[in-house]
Amino acid sequence: MNSGGEEATAQEGVHDGETALRALADYLAEDMKACNREIVARMQSEVPLIPQLAAHLVAAGGKRLRPLLVLAAARLAGYDVQGDDMRHVGVAACVEFIHTATLLHDDVVDNSQLRRGLASANAVFGNKASVLVGDFLFARAFQILTADGSLPVMAILSAASATLAEGEVMQMTTQNDLSTTVDRYLQVIYGKTAALFAAACETGAVVAGADEHTRAALRDYGANLGMAFQLVDDALDYAADQAVLGKTVGDDFREGKVTLPVLAAYHAGNEEERAFWVKTIEDNESQVDADLDRALDLIAKTDAIGVTMARARDYAEKACQALEGAHISSGDDKLAGLLVAVARYTAVRSR
Amino acid sequence: MNSGGEEATAQEGVHDGETALRALADYLAEDMKACNREIVARMQSEVPLIPQLAAHLVAAGGKRLRPLLVLAAARLAGYDVQGDDMRHVGVAACVEFIHTATLLHDDVVDNSQLRRGLASANAVFGNKASVLVGDFLFARAFQILTADGSLPVMAILSAASATLAEGEVMQMTTQNDLSTTVDRYLQVIYGKTAALFAAACETGAVVAGADEHTRAALRDYGANLGMAFQLVDDALDYAADQAVLGKTVGDDFREGKVTLPVLAAYHAGNEEERAFWVKTIEDNESQVDADLDRALDLIAKTDAIGVTMARARDYAEKACQALEGAHISSGDDKLAGLLVAVARYTAVRSR
Repeated sequence: MNSGGEEATAQEGVHDGETALRALADYLAEDMKACNREIVARMQSEVPLIPQLAAHLVAAGGKRLRPLLVLAAARLAGYDVQGDDMRHVGVAACVEFIHTATLLHDDVVDNSQLRRGLASANAVFGNKASVLVGDFLFARAFQILTADGSLPVMAILSAASATLAEGEVMQMTTQNDLSTTVDRYLQVIYGKTAALFAAACETGAVVAGADEHTRAALRDYGANLGMAFQLVDDALDYAADQAVLGKTVGDDFREGKVTLPVLAAYHAGNEEERAFWVKTIEDNESQVDADLDRALDLIAKTDAIGVTMARARDYAEKACQALEGAHISSGDDKLAGLLVAVARYTAVRSR
Repeated sequence: MNSGGEEATAQEGVHDGETALRALADYLAEDMKACNREIVARMQSEVPLIPQLAAHLVAAGGKRLRPLLVLAAARLAGYDVQGDDMRHVGVAACVEFIHTATLLHDDVVDNSQLRRGLASANAVFGNKASVLVGDFLFARAFQILTADGSLPVMAILSAASATLAEGEVMQMTTQNDLSTTVDRYLQVIYGKTAALFAAACETGAVVAGADEHTRAALRDYGANLGMAFQLVDDALDYAADQAVLGKTVGDDFREGKVTLPVLAAYHAGNEEERAFWVKTIEDNESQVDADLDRALDLIAKTDAIGVTMARARDYAEKACQALEGAHISSGDDKLAGLLVAVARYTAVRSR
């Protein structure tokens, strides 16, 4: 499978995370289309504002990474679609609903005005509607899952949802606190990101009726991919040429978020530099515009982005190992190769 | 059963809704204690802020009406606790978690500073923590339900949760809009309140293994009780002597909420009075202090409270009929009588 994976990526000309993801989405294009249809169908309500607001976020077009992982894991674990049997698509839609609910709530609590380069839902529809539609999508996800009827899938996704909320609360309590350890930071990003990645992959395996071995391998793949993904995201927030991301560079800095780039620069800094970080992160309200430039300089000087990306690559490597070591015998080496490529190139972004 | 109910309430000296509820809670004191223990045990998390914030609301001591309904319905439907079998307690805790989550989110979106006479969670812990802990409690509820393993219970509670969010969104869209019909208003209060009352009673029946007939009767009881309950709540918001409730009189008026007291006064008013309502409700930001006094005068003049309470009594009567007509043969006539009394006296409050 390993060599199959290498071949596949070579064939595709995949050389960065974005292209690897696109290749995976293309390979599963039919499933993804069905999933998009399911998402639109299931966010309907007799209260018109609900699909309107939900559509705003859907139209903004995220990568649909989490549902893609459900679909890929299900297929890799041998889920065979016979006739109308498209359970993996329903579960994938639920995972996207849970994720969307957290995005809606995050943007409210962070008072974000932009999401994926467009006005955020709360900016357009107000905080109240965003909170309530988030609640609706979460409830709807569990309605769909109940109808699907798999207790193991529900156990995985309800636990991941609780962990997600815990991760967000933990992140809130580490904000403005430079005594946060790297381990604590890793716990935060596991909760806020990796737990749902892991759950997405594991539910795909469960839907496919996979054995515990395959289930564990896919869960590990997802968890490690999620860690890598969030580390890269946190690094990019300090990458000055990333305005193309649709998020403003330095958002985390302005909010006083304690992420690995900051911790790495802080720990590697001299006394005066550490004092700068304490002042700007722990009392982020007092920041002036020039502070971001100084922060970027210090991050460059201490290679804090390099440190963060190296750790992302470590997790990505673990994700590949989880998948390759499992020898999942679905016969779909192409798909296995694409999943390996997604992990391997996560820490290499085209933009 | 009817006469049993009358007797029971006569014996208890029950003559208003508060006393009837207290009598029911006393009768189920052991179950309620177990439920309170379950609530405290299940809101734990390794993230300390979560139980802290949840405890703030729990300590504020609501009536625990919804879990009480689960417990009562289960017992009335013949649920017999053998040894450690306390499933109804777990389901009751979940219903309270779902309700608590909506309270936390409501207070954030309404920017409420008070809840049950104490500082609201968002006032003490901030909006962000309140939104996230609400999400946590909701996820935790579905985790507990998944472990309980009853798909019908999960179907009822996930659907009720979605209806709840829809009701809240609908309420938001009717706010400041005096063209809202009474039917629409009734739809709103069904969604925001009655749906979870109905679900609480129905899940109690399901846990007890009740037949469809009993299940439907208890669901109807809960739905009608919930309607009566919300109508009374909306009436009390204009009852000038209700400062004891721990909520400020006139909150709904100041927010421009379109409730039945307002609709009744508006529809019964002359042209000048209708203009007053349009000005103050549709542009609630422009209200001055004297407007509330005028509103209370008009509500008194048109007997809008009387109209609202009469409708509450209609629903309460339907709740009693649902229960009495079902002839649920658990042998616990005392409990049946207490439930009838709760409904019958809902529209009679001691304070």
